[in-house]
Amino acid sequence: MASKPSIPKGTRDFSPAEVAKRNYIIQIIKTNFEKFGFQPIETPSFENSETLMGKYGEEGDRLIFKILNSGDYLAKANATHLEAKDSTKLTASISEKALRYDLTVPFARYVVQHQNEIEFPFKRYQVQPVWRADRPQKGRFREFFQCDADVVGSQSLWQEVELVQLYDSVFAALGLQGVTIKINNRKILSGIAEVIGASDKLIDFTVALDKLDKIGEDGVKKEMTEKGITADAISKVQPLFQFSGTFAEKIQQLSSLLADSAEGMKGVEELRFICDNVANLGLSAAILDLDVTLARGLNYYTGAIFEVAAPKTVAMGSIGGGGRYDDLTGIFGLKNMSGVGISFGLDRIYLVIEELSLFPQTVTATSAALFLNYGHKEALYAMQAIGKLRQAGIRVELYPDAAKLAKQFQHADKRGIPYAVLVGETEMEAGTYALKNLASGEQQNLSFDELLKVLQVK
Amino acid sequence: MASKPSIPKGTRDFSPAEVAKRNYIIQIIKTNFEKFGFQPIETPSFENSETLMGKYGEEGDRLIFKILNSGDYLAKANATHLEAKDSTKLTASISEKALRYDLTVPFARYVVQHQNEIEFPFKRYQVQPVWRADRPQKGRFREFFQCDADVVGSQSLWQEVELVQLYDSVFAALGLQGVTIKINNRKILSGIAEVIGASDKLIDFTVALDKLDKIGEDGVKKEMTEKGITADAISKVQPLFQFSGTFAEKIQQLSSLLADSAEGMKGVEELRFICDNVANLGLSAAILDLDVTLARGLNYYTGAIFEVAAPKTVAMGSIGGGGRYDDLTGIFGLKNMSGVGISFGLDRIYLVIEELSLFPQTVTATSAALFLNYGHKEALYAMQAIGKLRQAGIRVELYPDAAKLAKQFQHADKRGIPYAVLVGETEMEAGTYALKNLASGEQQNLSFDELLKVLQVK
Repeated sequence: MASKPSIPKGTRDFSPAEVAKRNYIIQIIKTNFEKFGFQPIETPSFENSETLMGKYGEEGDRLIFKILNSGDYLAKANATHLEAKDSTKLTASISEKALRYDLTVPFARYVVQHQNEIEFPFKRYQVQPVWRADRPQKGRFREFFQCDADVVGSQSLWQEVELVQLYDSVFAALGLQGVTIKINNRKILSGIAEVIGASDKLIDFTVALDKLDKIGEDGVKKEMTEKGITADAISKVQPLFQFSGTFAEKIQQLSSLLADSAEGMKGVEELRFICDNVANLGLSAAILDLDVTLARGLNYYTGAIFEVAAPKTVAMGSIGGGGRYDDLTGIFGLKNMSGVGISFGLDRIYLVIEELSLFPQTVTATSAALFLNYGHKEALYAMQAIGKLRQAGIRVELYPDAAKLAKQFQHADKRGIPYAVLVGETEMEAGTYALKNLASGEQQNLSFDELLKVLQVK
Repeated sequence: MASKPSIPKGTRDFSPAEVAKRNYIIQIIKTNFEKFGFQPIETPSFENSETLMGKYGEEGDRLIFKILNSGDYLAKANATHLEAKDSTKLTASISEKALRYDLTVPFARYVVQHQNEIEFPFKRYQVQPVWRADRPQKGRFREFFQCDADVVGSQSLWQEVELVQLYDSVFAALGLQGVTIKINNRKILSGIAEVIGASDKLIDFTVALDKLDKIGEDGVKKEMTEKGITADAISKVQPLFQFSGTFAEKIQQLSSLLADSAEGMKGVEELRFICDNVANLGLSAAILDLDVTLARGLNYYTGAIFEVAAPKTVAMGSIGGGGRYDDLTGIFGLKNMSGVGISFGLDRIYLVIEELSLFPQTVTATSAALFLNYGHKEALYAMQAIGKLRQAGIRVELYPDAAKLAKQFQHADKRGIPYAVLVGETEMEAGTYALKNLASGEQQNLSFDELLKVLQVK
């Protein structure tokens, strides 16, 4: 191979420092998932194509990575599609497996497949990569991790309350203050659709309303009119243009607006339950805010809808989202299983934590000390100490060759190792260790116990 | 979808208990990798096909999972191969990416691609899944994790010494006593080939010799003769039929046998260095044994060869392996980079630990307590305590509905949750919590601080 090797576009290599930082975030997410009673499962990277296809819409089907059948796949290829060179239709006969596109469909499949072993309500979390043949761009990758927590088999709104707390708990542990957890409810949106008398215009409506801050009331109304929403409808939802105040006040306004919509009022009640209880219990890092323009997952969410916005000081899209879907497992034949869940956007959270310098310095720490190599006899002496230090859980290394000392020091420096331990003949005879702080240049002669003590706190 | 959903053959779903047990092993492996100075990297699940193809032999090429190009892949398909229905040849024109087959080739690619950012010697570890289109059978899967630690850019034999210690350290931490780390050296095998005067017969020779315990000296000699090894050659290696004693004694015997082979004697010296230093430093859970029949990776290993056997009480194949390859990165154009590494077989180690009942009971522990739900007011009171317990790092849950108590108790029981916390009106008024031990039936009335104390030790 002549040219320098590369990796497929949209994929990434992670260096040791990057892995350490990613794991720092993942570990905090997992620890909090478990504190809230969620249990981990893992599903295969690829599923049978029939499990995935048709679950994400036509666009989704296109973005699913298909795995070519092994062996003589053309022998079983559909002759008609092959002749017609119809790639889309041919796929089913030469590929029967595909890489998972998200963690929700595999979870639904898991629940149905293992329904007899599962005790419901089942709170599961899953942190695994997913793959999408999307056009790569800044912050969008073809392989990325999803971090999902879902409860299936419970319609209790305490789940929504706890999911808000779970978001808060993770962001607090990350030291990330000022996150906004935006909440809405599908039933509120249905109520608004009833009021404006056009459910097919709902998205146009929310998209326009979302621009209120930017283009003002007149601008929004103009856009709504252009989209075919009647003046009468717009006047009916006039309160939404002055929609403000506390969460409780907003609920009050919605309650008047949607008074005639049974569905809408049900949404108001649900929001009130969540809001009241979250307020009673308190949040420590995040703010819960009602956002009626929030319409993500409109096709599948049936109750609460969540979206998390990074602190305003950071220019970043949403760093999490989720909601309730009353029929999570119906696609696989198990009816009446309500699910509610949230997801953390690892890549974006990483960028936010990086931008705000919130990664603890210790996260990327490598070994605590490098033992310099003065030759075989000294190295053996060093290795005895190294063995005992490692048994005490301390990360230490021996420079593998008796190279020039300058080279060995340079290695410690480039690796970011804070200490060098020098053990030459003098130290061996005295049974000591010369510990050199590579930042200050300070050097101390220590007994093994003293050495252990210094390195233990690193 | 009418039928119950399933997953592709050779793949697995992992339940919460299985994930917990796998993570227990993985965490011990990672912790020890880091204690020995290895740093984590991660590479993409799929690589460009040209990175992988041709690196694992013809059989390997066949077992690599190929990813179908997205979009209208037939438009760019090679017309000749398509017409001829030649699946093997067509693949290159309709698939340009493939799932990684192991972690070694991606690591070599990583080293070459990032050579200017890497400080050598580079000690990296990688714990990620790999995929092989092998015929699935007991203990062999199409998706499985590899746990690899490799050093690149150092020819020092201290690396081999440390890798033996690393194996020992991991097995000691797992409580797995009696593991045998078998070691051999490619140069010893070359020496033997010289002595028998037929390097093409080397594998036949080692395979036959490996049966010494089972079929006896006569049986082995018979098999060797059948394979075309001359009587003269067999008589020259006669000492190998009485090959026994301590490691040092075995080395002595090899030293006489291979006295005329410069290559063989180099192997003897390398083995001696490793053996002497490992013996000086000591092992705590494993035994290091010289096994001249060990010939794994004969095509690429150039120095030490490792294979780890489970304790004799467990019927299990090798649970780890590795070796040194003098030209790790040459396939990608970076010459003279010696690499040495070892791998842990996660699935088999799992089975061994399970069979010997070495998983700590706490590994699969779920929440410490389930708070029963007596209705909204009581649930809110419970949630206040739950929030504080979670802040203290304790895993607790609220039963989401005010269901019949029998049902709630049953849920705790089925989930293996050891305690239920009962908070009805009485407790609310008194500001206490009734903690019920579900195994003994014992119930105590506790203040919050007392509750925290009891649950903290779980």
